[in-house]
Parts: sequence; structure tokens; C-alpha cells
Amino acid sequence: MRNATIILADRPKGIPEARHFAIEDQPIPMVAEGQFLIRMSAWSVDPAQRGWANDAPNYMRPVAIGEAMRAFSVGEVVESKNANYPVGTVVAGLFGWRSFHVTDGADVNSVVDYDDLPSSYALGVLGLTGLTAYFGLTDCCEPKSGETVVVSTAAGAVGSTVGQIAKILGCRTVGIAGGPQKVRLCLDAYGYDAAIDYRAPGLEDALAAVTPDGVDCYFDNTSGAISDAVMTRLAKGARITICGTASIADWDPIPQGPRVHRQILVAGARMSGFLFFNYVDRRAEGLDRLKSWLRSGALTAREHRLEGAEAAPGAIEFLYAGKNLGKLLIAL
Amino acid sequence: MRNATIILADRPKGIPEARHFAIEDQPIPMVAEGQFLIRMSAWSVDPAQRGWANDAPNYMRPVAIGEAMRAFSVGEVVESKNANYPVGTVVAGLFGWRSFHVTDGADVNSVVDYDDLPSSYALGVLGLTGLTAYFGLTDCCEPKSGETVVVSTAAGAVGSTVGQIAKILGCRTVGIAGGPQKVRLCLDAYGYDAAIDYRAPGLEDALAAVTPDGVDCYFDNTSGAISDAVMTRLAKGARITICGTASIADWDPIPQGPRVHRQILVAGARMSGFLFFNYVDRRAEGLDRLKSWLRSGALTAREHRLEGAEAAPGAIEFLYAGKNLGKLLIAL
Repeated sequence: MRNATIILADRPKGIPEARHFAIEDQPIPMVAEGQFLIRMSAWSVDPAQRGWANDAPNYMRPVAIGEAMRAFSVGEVVESKNANYPVGTVVAGLFGWRSFHVTDGADVNSVVDYDDLPSSYALGVLGLTGLTAYFGLTDCCEPKSGETVVVSTAAGAVGSTVGQIAKILGCRTVGIAGGPQKVRLCLDAYGYDAAIDYRAPGLEDALAAVTPDGVDCYFDNTSGAISDAVMTRLAKGARITICGTASIADWDPIPQGPRVHRQILVAGARMSGFLFFNYVDRRAEGLDRLKSWLRSGALTAREHRLEGAEAAPGAIEFLYAGKNLGKLLIAL
Repeated sequence: MRNATIILADRPKGIPEARHFAIEDQPIPMVAEGQFLIRMSAWSVDPAQRGWANDAPNYMRPVAIGEAMRAFSVGEVVESKNANYPVGTVVAGLFGWRSFHVTDGADVNSVVDYDDLPSSYALGVLGLTGLTAYFGLTDCCEPKSGETVVVSTAAGAVGSTVGQIAKILGCRTVGIAGGPQKVRLCLDAYGYDAAIDYRAPGLEDALAAVTPDGVDCYFDNTSGAISDAVMTRLAKGARITICGTASIADWDPIPQGPRVHRQILVAGARMSGFLFFNYVDRRAEGLDRLKSWLRSGALTAREHRLEGAEAAPGAIEFLYAGKNLGKLLIAL
């Protein structure tokens, strides 16, 4: 049996590309007392992997050269010497881009306790992605019914969930996405009240036209020119969640942009960096809300699946190029 | 009797200079039923006046050309047809740079109810300045005992109060100020644990040396290069209050600087614009704390007095050049 593993082979500067990785066929590790073996069904591809692969200050240590790439994965227990995780249990966690993984459970994030929804949702809308959208919006942005919420990468995995939750909470939602196909997706699949193609000319004017009362909440997944445009539209008391910086290829050195200080001051605005790790204790609360919205049909989740381990090395680049329509996964 | 009044004669772009103002000797207005006449003893000079004089988006409408310059002032009621403000009452408010002012009381911010402290404190440590320091620090930065608090314009009216309050609350305080005289003042008069001269070379290194565990709270009065240096030192969960942007002469067009998004994201930091108007309802709470600290000697306030109405037109420029040592006033 093969244990295809994606190794970080070279240190990227900025967005990791296929050439920074290698595929190795590693032996399947032995299961010691207290441990269990997971066979993965899907690997996640997440924006955070850029930071993990780079050798720059971050919230986790960088992945070492020669080490399996850090990633969220979901799979089924196929051998077990741990009574808490019997064979057949489906678990998700930071298991890496490995086909098989042995653990004592310390790196398990969640046991998939539903079978009416796909287990791969544990990597997306019922995992880091959905919880990031939920807490990043409700806790950092604190949207109120009737307010205008702007979302960048609005058709992406996090963004599309943010937009739908804001709508459920009674907000007016404006999505910013790249290209006509994603704009259509925003309007048709995710229920945004308005959607703007940032690749078309006149972003500032387009944004002004659909935010006549200014922007109360901005869920920022991009930084860069999109954020610069949104910052010119802040309403009094605006709240901004910084969740990602997808439009900036390289932060070393830090790129220049318009200073935000006066806009934040004049609006009495608040800008918060969202770190999921601050919300780990509230995981159950978030998952309960998300599951109930998924089951009622108020919330829709889309997946974009690439097939096989060979697709993984180029997948982060694919993600940052905005080519996915929905949560990006590697199906094994 | 003369009623010297400082008129905004020309529209500044950026920092208002003496040439943008004119001194007029206006008639003393009549007192109608329900009104009273105030003779000013001091005019305030505040950073906010730059914004009020400019024709740019702000939290108050711009001062019109030909209108008396908007300013906080303090004075005594010398004629009254309003039983709530009998002759002899000392009041502070947004009365403008006028020697005499008639009002029905709508623009009174506070009645000076103490005589053991100077009435001019109502323009500084017991007025907007002190309340800005108090709420901007305690409410936006939420400093905890043992944390490191960095303050820019650390020897200024707001900054020196912030630094002292942070110290009272048990924090380690680091002041950033311009020139050796102000650095000395930070250490000797305001009790900072460390003080850095931003005009000397090596600001980033100097800051790193005195913030070995990073910066938990940053009270930002400057924007610009000082803030850029502090942003490289954020501790996890750092809180930043944007209170002023003294180092930026002109915001039209918005000047470029290093993008802050990734620093805010990686630290899970929070950056809040401080608007005093959000705290008007809590004025009494803030004044009570400040008065008790002043009376106990835990808090020190310094005033820098310029003499006579003729000093007012150049006073905002003087303030932004950092020439004052303590709260800047025009004594009449």
C-alpha cells in the first residue's frame, strides 16, 4: 500500500509553487499502544499554508525543509490501539498532506459526528473555513441587522460563508470577487445583494454606487488595492476583520500602500486581526450554528475538488490565482 | 472693551499656519433672555484644530472662511440672564478663539466645580486632553498590569497623561518623543520606564532594546515612521489606539507607508480609532478618576502658556512642530 506524502522540498518566498514540493512514497507507520492509523480521504488546501511554508514571523513555526507539508486532512481510522478512536471513526485534524498518519489523537481537531453531510465539510464549512467565517464575522465585525457588510474574495470558501452568514443575520451584503463567473456565483449561489468584479476598471466608483451609506463591516481576505478602495467608504464606527492577505504575493519587504491611520481615526473604526486559535474553545458553539444553517438550507457550501496526491504541489498556487470555485480540496 | 477674535481667513491644506488666520476686534455681543456672557481666561490649542480648519472629511464640519476659529476655551460668566449660569460661574466649552462669547449654554462642556486645581485644567488634563488619554488608553487599549505600553508624542499633553495613567495601572511604559529635552521630561516628570528620541538614528533598534517581550499596547499620536517602527514589535493580541496623526502634514492625497494588514493579522492585533464623541456620556467617570489622581499627586499636568491673542494664529503650527512642553494654551 502506498503512502503518498507531499514534502516541502524548497523554501518559497511568497506563494508556494509546485516546484517547492516533492511527492514521496513513505512507509506506512506502525501503530503503537494508544495510537491509531488514519487513511485520508481528502486533504485541504488553505491560504494559511502560504504562511506555514514561508520562513517569516507567523503564528506557527515554519514547516521544515524535508518535512511533510502542514495541512488539514480528513480520514477514517483503519487500525486502532486507542479505545477513544475505534476503527471506522472519521476524524479531521492537522495531519498534513499524508495518505496515512499515525497519532495518539493529540492532533485531532474534530470527530465527524454527522453522516447527513459530507465528511469533507470538516475541512471547509464545518472546519477551519466555516469557523473562521463565523467567528471572524460575528465576533470581530459584530454586524447588526440592516448594516452593510462588504466581503473580499466573496466567492471563496471563507468569503462565501461570510456573505451568507451576514445575510442570515439581516445585513445588506456586497461581494468583491475576480471575474464575471465569480460575480455570477456571488449573486446566484451566495445571495449577495450586490457583487463587484475587481478586475474590471472603476472599482472605487462601483463600490461607492452600491454602498451609498458607507461600509459598516468589511471582512478583508485580500489587503492590497481592494482593501484600499473599501477603506475610502468606511461608515462611522466601522469594523474591519483582517482575515487574509491574498492579493499580496510577498510581505518581505512589506509592500507600501495608502496609510490607514486617518481613515480609522476619522471613522472611529476598529480593525482586528483574526486568529482562529483564539476561538478554539468556542468550536462547538460555531459548529452547532453552521450545521443548523446547512441543514435548514440557509447556508450553502461548495467544494472544488482536485483529484489525487499529484494535484497537491500546485494547489496553493491554484488557490492564490483564484482559480477555485468553492472550498479547494485534494480528493484521494 | 476689546473682543479680540481669531478668524479663519484662508483655507489651509494640512497644518494651519499664522497666515491662514486674522485677528479682528469684534463688538461684544448683547445678552438676550436665557443667555449669558463669558469672558475667556484661556484658549486651548489642540491637534484636532488642524482637521477642523481643513476642508476634508472629518467628524465635524469644517470651520468656514471668515468664521471664528473653533476651539475649546475657559472663562468666567460676567453677565447673565440665565439662572443656571450665574455671574462668577467658570465654564469650559467649544466657545472658539473669542475673548467674549454669548451662549444659552448649549456649547458648554463643563462647569469648573473645583478651585483647588487651576481652571485652565478644564482645557487639558480635566478636559478633552485628559479624557482622551483616559478613555483612549483604558477603553481602546485595555492595558493590563505588567504589560508594555508604548506612547508616541510621549511628552505631549495627551501622551504624557497616557504614560502616567498606564504607569498608575501597573504597566511598563515606553515613551517616544522628539529631542533630548523631551526624553528627559518623559523620564523625570512623567515616570516612563524608558524613553526614546525618534530624531536620533536607529529608532527600530532602540525600540527593540526596550521592548524585549514586544509591545502589548501602542497609543499612536503620530502615524508615520514612528508607528511603522512600533508595528514591527507587536506582541500577540496587541491593542493599538489611533488618536492622532501628528507626523503627517497632509492627508490629501493619502501618503504611502508599509501596509499594516499582515502585522495585524499575525499578531491577532486590534487597531481602534479614538473619537472622543463616543465617550461624552462617560465624562463624569473619567473626570472623577483624573481629579483623584491629580489630588493624590499620582498624576502631574504641565501647561505651556503663550501670552495674548496675538500668539494664537501661529500656535497650531507651533504645536505640530513639537515646540510645546506640556498642554499648549493661549493665556488672555
